[in-house]
Amino acid sequence: MSLESYMNQIGQQARAASRLLAKASTEHKNNALLAMADALEKARPRLIEENAKDIQNGKKKGLDAALLDRLLLSDARIDGMIEGLKQVAGLPDPIGEITDMLYRPSGIQLGKMRVPLGVIGIIYESRPNVTIDAASLCLKSGNATILRGGSEAFYSNQAIAEAVTAGLNAVGLPESAVQVLNTTDRDAVGRLIAMPEYVDVIVPRGGKGLIERISKDARVPVIKHLDGNCHVYIDDEADLDKAFKIALNAKTRRYGVCNAMESLLIHQAVAQQILPKLVSAFHEKGVELVGCDATRSIVAGSAASDIAIGVATQEDWFTEYLAPKLSIKMLSDMEEAIEHINHYGSHHSDAIISQNYSKTRAFMTQVDSSSVMVNASTAFADGFEYGLGAEIGISTDKIHARGPVGLIGLTSQKYIVLGDGHTRDN
Amino acid sequence: MSLESYMNQIGQQARAASRLLAKASTEHKNNALLAMADALEKARPRLIEENAKDIQNGKKKGLDAALLDRLLLSDARIDGMIEGLKQVAGLPDPIGEITDMLYRPSGIQLGKMRVPLGVIGIIYESRPNVTIDAASLCLKSGNATILRGGSEAFYSNQAIAEAVTAGLNAVGLPESAVQVLNTTDRDAVGRLIAMPEYVDVIVPRGGKGLIERISKDARVPVIKHLDGNCHVYIDDEADLDKAFKIALNAKTRRYGVCNAMESLLIHQAVAQQILPKLVSAFHEKGVELVGCDATRSIVAGSAASDIAIGVATQEDWFTEYLAPKLSIKMLSDMEEAIEHINHYGSHHSDAIISQNYSKTRAFMTQVDSSSVMVNASTAFADGFEYGLGAEIGISTDKIHARGPVGLIGLTSQKYIVLGDGHTRDN
Repeated sequence: MSLESYMNQIGQQARAASRLLAKASTEHKNNALLAMADALEKARPRLIEENAKDIQNGKKKGLDAALLDRLLLSDARIDGMIEGLKQVAGLPDPIGEITDMLYRPSGIQLGKMRVPLGVIGIIYESRPNVTIDAASLCLKSGNATILRGGSEAFYSNQAIAEAVTAGLNAVGLPESAVQVLNTTDRDAVGRLIAMPEYVDVIVPRGGKGLIERISKDARVPVIKHLDGNCHVYIDDEADLDKAFKIALNAKTRRYGVCNAMESLLIHQAVAQQILPKLVSAFHEKGVELVGCDATRSIVAGSAASDIAIGVATQEDWFTEYLAPKLSIKMLSDMEEAIEHINHYGSHHSDAIISQNYSKTRAFMTQVDSSSVMVNASTAFADGFEYGLGAEIGISTDKIHARGPVGLIGLTSQKYIVLGDGHTRDN
Repeated sequence: MSLESYMNQIGQQARAASRLLAKASTEHKNNALLAMADALEKARPRLIEENAKDIQNGKKKGLDAALLDRLLLSDARIDGMIEGLKQVAGLPDPIGEITDMLYRPSGIQLGKMRVPLGVIGIIYESRPNVTIDAASLCLKSGNATILRGGSEAFYSNQAIAEAVTAGLNAVGLPESAVQVLNTTDRDAVGRLIAMPEYVDVIVPRGGKGLIERISKDARVPVIKHLDGNCHVYIDDEADLDKAFKIALNAKTRRYGVCNAMESLLIHQAVAQQILPKLVSAFHEKGVELVGCDATRSIVAGSAASDIAIGVATQEDWFTEYLAPKLSIKMLSDMEEAIEHINHYGSHHSDAIISQNYSKTRAFMTQVDSSSVMVNASTAFADGFEYGLGAEIGISTDKIHARGPVGLIGLTSQKYIVLGDGHTRDN
């Protein structure tokens, strides 16, 4: 079969399955998730065996240690997938929720009903456990899924797909509710993102390169996450103890995550007091520091003068390091902080530390980011912390879904109109 | 200046203005709308003069009477624009609304704040009053707007733009909050829909050709409205008096509107009773009828046998006539109706007429349309009827906005996190 025919068939099957999933009961969907968990448990030896092929191929291809680690399906990671399925089964079902039912002057009663999006295409890179994460959230929200994993995880993903199919079969849901593409042909991705007749939305998960490429070529809406260039702004009216704790947490809790602080902005009036203390703490944790001229000269004239602060360039302000590195800038007021964040930031998560009522209010309103924190760490920007139960990603877009995307982000709402013979006069 | 430079400048100015609009107070925005209404009133002679140029050019170009009528700025239409501005000023401001503030186990308090999308590009065809409709809704929702009207309305749109600018100036909002492109170069549209750095969403208003072209080439999300191929399904358990009234209203209230019924589906068990009566009523109103074989044979053997019913083709079931024409199909159960609607329909607005509780519930859940009506006319699918105050269009998409799009559809929500020194442990 040609790739074109194969993809059309996958698309048609997904569309057909989506109609059945849209009317599947909560219990039916939950049973499918639990049956998948059982099937994964039974397939454990096979998963590890197939994964070993991927690891071996990866080593041959010279993948680096970090990539090989992401690729690995250990027993603990299989436990994680099984646990994840059970957690998603335990989440409330968003589908069918009816809200805002109100009578209109015409006599009709108008409300909204939450419904699935339809068919969701997921494109991801090395980590095979994304197959389960994505499939479970999509299934619970009543959507059919077409998954395309990285070629380096091919055997692992196919083995996971078998368990998913077994789970669907066990409860009598259509196998094509979750389809994992069985080709590594790159043209399959090109086709998947350009079939609006079969696919309603694409969620790419992976590096910035992948996401930019997909967004550029997609003919279907894309829920995407690009950079997480997050800021903490310490105001001149900040409680400096809170500021110290939060800045340290936002940078050093983890380095490779999108909600980590990448730039620290400090009001010049409190810099003498807090900057040397923070610089020492970051240095102790092994964080490389770059800063503006004012930052460098304050540190140079302080007790922390032995700590080297590099020169921050324009590019630094734009950069998501995802590493133990931080840029620091001195500012003369909050407006400057807001402008800096809106200009250099990535509209992900940004925090103000201040005790001033009016300033926190202005910052919350004017910072154009998917999460705005007041006296709290940017590290909280996360689907689990936000109570979404799980997340399929964090959207840096404004359209449809913004911030951490859970089950609700995979749904839409339709209007429902209840009448009793009502017609419209004018 | 090259077109490229011109469009970049427009884009940069819009982005800058959007920052100021995002923090403009409700009063400031309302005053701008009222000042625009004043400016339009003062510009009345000029509007009519400039519009006369467009009409004259249109006649030279041989535009048909319907197009010339849409182009015309009569005194009544100028009244309409002024009234529209005042109505939008009177609507509640959605921006800044904070909802769902709840404490999380970590101690942070999490909620959502409604915010503008940023910059909205509107592309429309002949009717110059869309300039005011679109600009007012975008301004009220805190968005900067870039408007590109049809070349046939060029002089009218430029004159309206002057009044809009005068209104913005009068209250000290930036002129670039609303920019009407002063070029008829078609490449300007191509550029407008491909500047994600400056434009957050595109709303095309016009014929299907325009919308398809724009959706195909856009590099920015598009809120679009394609067909309105709406259905009414009369169930075997329908109250036939209600069914008669609703079917007649859905088809004959107006013919050229997207919420008009284009296909009537009737359960075979009640066809003998209701079909001849409906056929006579449609015939009296001058509606051309086509139907399936069963429909034609029932009518042929009834008191309405003198009324000609053409043969409905596959294409008829897919067609939005926007005209006094209707296709009629006989079905053997509700499931067939749901399948027909989901397959041939355009996911716009579809109704069931039935007294059966389970069937109305199943229809509501399973029909995949932006509005689903129970015992009510599809004619209600409209922003004013739904209480949105005004609408920028009706979306047939599922992503972001679905159904009639008012102020809320031009906004997004960001997360806000309130802490008091909160950091994340794990």
